[in-house]
Amino acid sequence: MRTFVHPVLIGFGDCDPAGIVFYPNFFRWFDAAAHQMFRAVGCDIRSARREHGWIVGPLVDAGAKFRSPATHGDTVEVRSTIGEWTAKTFRVDYRITRGETLIAEGWEVRILAEPHPDDPSRIRALTIPDEFRALFA
Amino acid sequence: MRTFVHPVLIGFGDCDPAGIVFYPNFFRWFDAAAHQMFRAVGCDIRSARREHGWIVGPLVDAGAKFRSPATHGDTVEVRSTIGEWTAKTFRVDYRITRGETLIAEGWEVRILAEPHPDDPSRIRALTIPDEFRALFA
Amino acid sequence: MRTFVHPVLIGFGDCDPAGIVFYPNFFRWFDAAAHQMFRAVGCDIRSARREHGWIVGPLVDAGAKFRSPATHGDTVEVRSTIGEWTAKTFRVDYRITRGETLIAEGWEVRILAEPHPDDPSRIRALTIPDEFRALFA
Amino acid sequence: MRTFVHPVLIGFGDCDPAGIVFYPNFFRWFDAAAHQMFRAVGCDIRSARREHGWIVGPLVDAGAKFRSPATHGDTVEVRSTIGEWTAKTFRVDYRITRGETLIAEGWEVRILAEPHPDDPSRIRALTIPDEFRALFA
Repeated sequence: MRTFVHPVLIGFGDCDPAGIVFYPNFFRWFDAAAHQMFRAVGCDIRSARREHGWIVGPLVDAGAKFRSPATHGDTVEVRSTIGEWTAKTFRVDYRITRGETLIAEGWEVRILAEPHPDDPSRIRALTIPDEFRALFA
Repeated sequence: MRTFVHPVLIGFGDCDPAGIVFYPNFFRWFDAAAHQMFRAVGCDIRSARREHGWIVGPLVDAGAKFRSPATHGDTVEVRSTIGEWTAKTFRVDYRITRGETLIAEGWEVRILAEPHPDDPSRIRALTIPDEFRALFA
Repeated sequence: MRTFVHPVLIGFGDCDPAGIVFYPNFFRWFDAAAHQMFRAVGCDIRSARREHGWIVGPLVDAGAKFRSPATHGDTVEVRSTIGEWTAKTFRVDYRITRGETLIAEGWEVRILAEPHPDDPSRIRALTIPDEFRALFA
Repeated sequence: MRTFVHPVLIGFGDCDPAGIVFYPNFFRWFDAAAHQMFRAVGCDIRSARREHGWIVGPLVDAGAKFRSPATHGDTVEVRSTIGEWTAKTFRVDYRITRGETLIAEGWEVRILAEPHPDDPSRIRALTIPDEFRALFA
């Protein structure tokens, strides 16, 4: 699987009174890295909808382990890769590093969806098309 | 004009490494107070769209003066009132207080809009209907 | 273990272009609920430091499962309880509900720490005192 | 005065259910641009404190005018320059553009401060040293 790199400059306002990253921001950066990855393979949230009818990426679950603190002024790299495919889900794995130092690791399980035929205000998961999977090979 | 009160408990993550509120959060709370105000008069963003075709509240400008610091664990009150009407805009005025202490003052200028007839991806300002104005009297 | 309830009114700005909660906000609300819980037992981040020398709550890991969408204007309840203690960590379990509907479940593993004796800019985990554990019984 | 450029890639989570930037994020980007500017002149928040005893940049007020919508996937540039100096304040002016399109304009009034001699938990404004002003000339 391909690996994608998304740099982040940590802002003053991303940090809490302890002077380190307020942890929900790591998930914000995971999400941003996912969208950059979709964009990099030519399948961002808008083009996917328009060209294929796919709703790319609704979340099933997410988690992270925080390894070392990071602070404002640090530039970190978010590396993402797809770590697992099931019939209807894919797991994106993330590593955030500052130089050689591992700051955080995490994952998100996401789906491809379409509007639910019985109720267009809801969505339902699609079986992931080979065509989507191939984009990340 | 009516005044509306929206309480906010300041979170640890709302504060920056200086230990006080990271200022963009004041605007987040202004916006939340505006939506609560629209809801309180029976004209929230969804019902306004459905019942009147109005897009309530796109922003024209906003500003704030920061008077005293506030920190996590503080409960503050956001007081909002409509301070000025023009043909196509209204200004919401805010005061954030902690007990007797003024923390911040601010304002937002907002419009009522409808989808642009020539391009539904854009919006255009409506002349504000008396019916909307009356809700805040 | 005691259970604590923290209400959240979901804001317009907490939601993304899909119209539902942008998921990192769930972690922001978990964190806010944790701080409310520490406060409720008389051991908030400031009093714990001052009275006991404890740094309450640095994060080791966190995760969540997203069960049903929630949107702006919804009021949800975040229920937190301590689900597991080890010698040096405790896991806070969360359930976010809107009425009977489960919106999200999650957890955080946190520690109690003190400044590192060799380098006060770092922290090290404490063996969790019985006194702290007893607050949640 | 020198002008500084700070690029921002707008994230999915920076946008609201209307599909455009949730406006408090513009202030978040102003703040990030200010910190980048301080860093670029060799006077970031940490070095300023350590080398000069200055607390750089507490906010007095801030405001913005929103000119055109921007959305996720857009890369915008935040241009900052110091637009006015008074004895104890400086105003940073911002322009956010996407190519030729003006997205937002804004300003922040900030101070240089030191811990208050009577109460180190408070700060007081310094007369701005020529040395600081010269960094931006």
